[in-house]
Amino acid sequence: MMRNTLVLAAACLACQAPAPSAEQQAAETQAAADSAKAAISEASARYVRYVNANQADSIGALFAADGVLMPPDAPMAAGTDNIVATLKTMTLPGGTLTLASQNVSVSGDMAIARGTFTYTAPAQGGMPAVDVKGKYMEHWHRMDGQWRLVEDIWNNDAPQPAAPPPPKR
Amino acid sequence: MMRNTLVLAAACLACQAPAPSAEQQAAETQAAADSAKAAISEASARYVRYVNANQADSIGALFAADGVLMPPDAPMAAGTDNIVATLKTMTLPGGTLTLASQNVSVSGDMAIARGTFTYTAPAQGGMPAVDVKGKYMEHWHRMDGQWRLVEDIWNNDAPQPAAPPPPKR
Repeated sequence: MMRNTLVLAAACLACQAPAPSAEQQAAETQAAADSAKAAISEASARYVRYVNANQADSIGALFAADGVLMPPDAPMAAGTDNIVATLKTMTLPGGTLTLASQNVSVSGDMAIARGTFTYTAPAQGGMPAVDVKGKYMEHWHRMDGQWRLVEDIWNNDAPQPAAPPPPKR
Repeated sequence: MMRNTLVLAAACLACQAPAPSAEQQAAETQAAADSAKAAISEASARYVRYVNANQADSIGALFAADGVLMPPDAPMAAGTDNIVATLKTMTLPGGTLTLASQNVSVSGDMAIARGTFTYTAPAQGGMPAVDVKGKYMEHWHRMDGQWRLVEDIWNNDAPQPAAPPPPKR
């Protein structure tokens, strides 16, 4: 009996836990995706809050250190410092961003979020009021348990009026 | 002995193949990512070829049936028919697209490609010549073994001149 037990124990070293069923795996994948979507939704809400409070540094902290920002009609900004510097030129006092998520796809530690946005800001400093609608796509990656923005691109639904000439003196 | 063998066999029904080592898993993940990147690179080359040949239908066939095209300064187009109709207005005779891939991230059946592009086209039909540089992000998904475009967005590095007024008669 002792020998049988030993043989079985040896056989079971290779077994470890029984492989989960396809159903169990699907349920686990779904739960992981749901959890990722909730975390990304929460981070997106913070993104909006920071834009509307003109807190470029806080927006920058949502990005991975080597993240990439791709704004329309402006060059790409790579890395936190460049991202923050670019965001400072784009978040206007009194500006209001809204995001409407249309889809979030998750696979493991990678997620892609897509949706539409609106951005409005009052006229200021010789600049006309801003009233823009458009669409965005974000690549999020889970790093040390935290979902961070790796790539962020958006564009407008219509051409924006060119900046007016500086006011005459 | 017979009984022992039966007990072992029963124990091993739960074992199946021994779990691959972490090293084996990493190698398999890397091989899958390399294979995905090669397939996406090949599909991207076709995308460029079709744009430059003004074959909007062929570009549309690179997309998933419910794919989404998000061009700059224009509304989103969802579904193959709308994507092809939008592409027909954007691919100009004599136009030349180039893409430079900067990064492709892969996780399972999902991939994100990012890079820069140039597009030039000669003046035609009262429209000035086009000379645009910008950046793009693409979401690819493997469906039935085929990598397809699910979401495709790009924007320009500088504002584009507004279309000129129609010629006077």
